[in-house]
Amino acid sequence: MRLQTIRHADNRTQAVLATDSRWLPLPATDVGELIRHTEWRGTVTDIRRTASADDYLEQGTLPLASVVTSPRKIVCCGHNYRAHIREMGRPEPEYPTLFAKFADTLAGPHDDIELPDIARQVDWEAELALVIGTTCRAVTSAQARDHIAGYTAANDISVRDWQRRTPQWLQGKAFDATTPLGPAMVTADEIDPADGLPITCTVNGEQVQIGFTDDLVFDPAHLVSYISQFTTLAPGDVILTGTPGGVGAAAVPPRYLSEGDTITVDIERIGRLRNSIRFLPHDAYITRDKELAAYVEH
Amino acid sequence: MRLQTIRHADNRTQAVLATDSRWLPLPATDVGELIRHTEWRGTVTDIRRTASADDYLEQGTLPLASVVTSPRKIVCCGHNYRAHIREMGRPEPEYPTLFAKFADTLAGPHDDIELPDIARQVDWEAELALVIGTTCRAVTSAQARDHIAGYTAANDISVRDWQRRTPQWLQGKAFDATTPLGPAMVTADEIDPADGLPITCTVNGEQVQIGFTDDLVFDPAHLVSYISQFTTLAPGDVILTGTPGGVGAAAVPPRYLSEGDTITVDIERIGRLRNSIRFLPHDAYITRDKELAAYVEH
Repeated sequence: MRLQTIRHADNRTQAVLATDSRWLPLPATDVGELIRHTEWRGTVTDIRRTASADDYLEQGTLPLASVVTSPRKIVCCGHNYRAHIREMGRPEPEYPTLFAKFADTLAGPHDDIELPDIARQVDWEAELALVIGTTCRAVTSAQARDHIAGYTAANDISVRDWQRRTPQWLQGKAFDATTPLGPAMVTADEIDPADGLPITCTVNGEQVQIGFTDDLVFDPAHLVSYISQFTTLAPGDVILTGTPGGVGAAAVPPRYLSEGDTITVDIERIGRLRNSIRFLPHDAYITRDKELAAYVEH
Repeated sequence: MRLQTIRHADNRTQAVLATDSRWLPLPATDVGELIRHTEWRGTVTDIRRTASADDYLEQGTLPLASVVTSPRKIVCCGHNYRAHIREMGRPEPEYPTLFAKFADTLAGPHDDIELPDIARQVDWEAELALVIGTTCRAVTSAQARDHIAGYTAANDISVRDWQRRTPQWLQGKAFDATTPLGPAMVTADEIDPADGLPITCTVNGEQVQIGFTDDLVFDPAHLVSYISQFTTLAPGDVILTGTPGGVGAAAVPPRYLSEGDTITVDIERIGRLRNSIRFLPHDAYITRDKELAAYVEH
């Protein structure tokens, strides 16, 4: 199944099943809420069986929202593509490097990425993401497979100047609404990252990243297993599995995103994210004063 | 006001106002939910005015829960006490080192801290925490003061062997139910960390940490302002402000917690956390197999 989350004119979001060129609306605010119902597969099948033509919408008639809008947890993995680790001359890591993002970092697959202009070094990171389907704690990799509802794509837009201010990356990874997620969650029975799906990123049409989803040091099931050793994962939780080589910070000289730049992330069989960068004057967020000016000037 | 969250026999939690030796139950599942209602101060005043003696409970008749049970965000600051930075011979940091915790890391002020025995180097971190009262983004330090609902205490129990496996600390900071928070939130009109409140930690009665809440490089208002530059803070969000010197990992030789060890965290005018460490066999969490054994053996 190919599941998406659409945004209605009144800003309400809704999960939909994508079939051919149509959307079948489902009784959930987003794909995360949908899969929290244990019997969701049966529900979708029943709705599909009884739907009339009038129940469908034409695809593209409404904007897409983040495929999961409010995960309890987003866990991200760094340093995970073998080809990228080799090109950097690093040893293969023994453990996954993990950090967290907040739910409100998420954005729609085609949303503009708005950043305050105190963010200077804005970079891209194309990533395969997975969505947890059922609660798990301390599961093995073999068991973990059954807890993955499906796969989607993410662009872990990173503000490198903030990320590098301190040893912990959070502040460069947590600007509100800067991580597009989607365009669809493809259920795990229909797609397998071990098949080596190409994942690419372009900036203004120029390809900057390419990788294959079977090149992960820690594959999706391994990540779910590892993370579940210390924390309970629940339906709708999202794991970002890391980015291939070719980020802007690693270019010589480094290359960062400017106003109006358009970034695409494509994963075969999942689809495309396409987002443009917009810088807002810091005034748009704040009432300026001296203390804040000190930050802006850094 | 001194607000707490109690746990009823059916596991339901409820916010209460602590007055002398009594609790006045309030219409909210926890202090976080209480302060999400804009008019919560008026509500508490009204309830108090109209309460009869029968509406009160005796304090101590029910266990306490984490004072906020489900914050949308928990942001933690490392390297923040000047005395500790000096004793480590480090320069004063220019920016706060920030990382995130998940809501289900939280535990009650007197709960046992249960850890799977794959956690080997378990350490303490006494911390002043603050609770956000009203939504804010990109506020100055002066404005930030008005967005702090109150202050509480935390013990940021850290699993150092996991924390140090990779450059990012998350996996050592995110074991479920290992961060006691409470015992009360004292509203910001009644307490000011700039007064230099003593914060202490003991292990089995022996004092291991002492600090003063006016010794922070980045004080509570500064942290709220800084964090609000990149993310929206909302009522019930929690910020942990860092720990003074004297953690076990910094002792020579390092000292970690064992089964049955009891840790207290005291902050003057807020109160005491008192928690004992319990290690559960990994079997209690999992069905063992070879892959997992590999983790256990590390």
